[in-house]
Order: sequence, then C-alpha cells, then structure tokens
Amino acid sequence: MASIFSKIVAGEIPSYKIAEDDKFYAFLDVNPNAKGHTLCIPKKEVDKIFDLDEETYMELMRFSRKVAKAIEKSIPCKRVGMAVIGLEVPHVHVHLIPLQRMEDASFKTKVKMNEEEMKATCEAIRSNF
Amino acid sequence: MASIFSKIVAGEIPSYKIAEDDKFYAFLDVNPNAKGHTLCIPKKEVDKIFDLDEETYMELMRFSRKVAKAIEKSIPCKRVGMAVIGLEVPHVHVHLIPLQRMEDASFKTKVKMNEEEMKATCEAIRSNF
Repeated sequence: MASIFSKIVAGEIPSYKIAEDDKFYAFLDVNPNAKGHTLCIPKKEVDKIFDLDEETYMELMRFSRKVAKAIEKSIPCKRVGMAVIGLEVPHVHVHLIPLQRMEDASFKTKVKMNEEEMKATCEAIRSNF
Repeated sequence: MASIFSKIVAGEIPSYKIAEDDKFYAFLDVNPNAKGHTLCIPKKEVDKIFDLDEETYMELMRFSRKVAKAIEKSIPCKRVGMAVIGLEVPHVHVHLIPLQRMEDASFKTKVKMNEEEMKATCEAIRSNF
C-alpha cells in the first residue's frame, strides 16, 4: 500500500508544497514543531534513510540543503535543524525545523497553525527556493 | 577559541574515536541518548551545518552514512536516526542515534554508560567501519 507521503506526491492528499523535482518533494509538516517545519522526501518509497542507494541519499541531502536555505531566508530563527527519525511513517523524510531553542527539536511540543498561516508560510518559503 | 570538538580532533581532549579521515572525525557522544550514539564532525570549525560549503556538507553526509552503516551492524536497534541541532556547541555535528523508540531522538532521556561499556561499544562500531 502506498505510504501517506506517496499519496501526497501523487496529489491524492493535499499538501503545502514547497518544492519538487523529478526525484524529491518538499512540503510543510501539518503537525509542526515550529512554524516553517518542512519535510523533504524522495518520491521513491523507501523506509529507512540509510537503505537508500548512496546516489539517491546524496541527492536527497543536496535537495534538503536547498530547502533549508530557503527556510532560513523566510523564517526568523537561530538556525534550521535537521532530523531523520522515521519510526512513524515508513517512507524516508528529512525534517527541517527552524529552531529557537532545543525544545523545538524534541518533537514533544507542537505549534498550532491555521490554514491561512500555513499558506502564508508555504508561500514565503517557496518564493525563496 | 577552539571549540571542544576541535580540541577532541587535536587530541587535547580524549574521545572514543570511531573513524577519521583528512576532513572528518566520528566519536561516541559521552552523554548518549542511547548506546552507540555517535557524533560526526568536520575538522573545519563551522557553526551551522547549512553554512558549510556545499562540497564539505555533501562529504560530511557521505561520511555520516558510512558511520551509520557501521552502527547498524554493531548495535541492535530499529534504525539509526540522524539529527543536527547545534544550539549547544557551535561546531557542526551530526548525531547518529540507534533508535528503539521516538524518545531516543528527543534528547530528553539519556543512558548511563561506564568506561568499559563505552570502550566496548566504540570497538564494536570501529570494527564494522
């Protein structure tokens, strides 16, 4: 069965899309640790990041860096953090999180954002990509 | 002033070294989230990961993948997670953490390990690198 992220890539589930190329897709996390929290995924559905072939892994890292730089330009923060955990959705995803404090990287606290705020955040990051 | 990590690279502060090449250094985190928690750093002292030039960033990611694969072979876990936060030490470091549960990636819970356990863990990962 296709993962929820594959359904997002296929457009079956809507997303706040930040960027896309032939192999990768970036979109806002709908349950963000912080405003601007973004996920970068390979379109190819693989569970664990270190199981990706080296080339795909490296390209995903390059793509994630470009997205991170767009986030840095768009969202006031001390820095953009990166995390790959993957215990919840079995489809590789790189979290990019604008950090103000350690807590923002803990996945323990979440921020509430309405649709309008999500759209505006998405637009801001897209325009800097 | 040299960062604590630059002092580790220079051998001024001892470390449980996992791997080293001309540009990068990997060693066990002495305050681990989980057994086998490893840090990968560039020898060049830069504060934020996305400020690294693209080539150094990409090489760090390649180096970290090799270390992660050695950890996977050495430490029973569901997967190896990756995190870059960096609010505490201003020298880029990639956390590689053997994960059993989400909590292991939160930096909220730590495991106590004595010197003997650290040495044995280090040896196990080194031998698989």
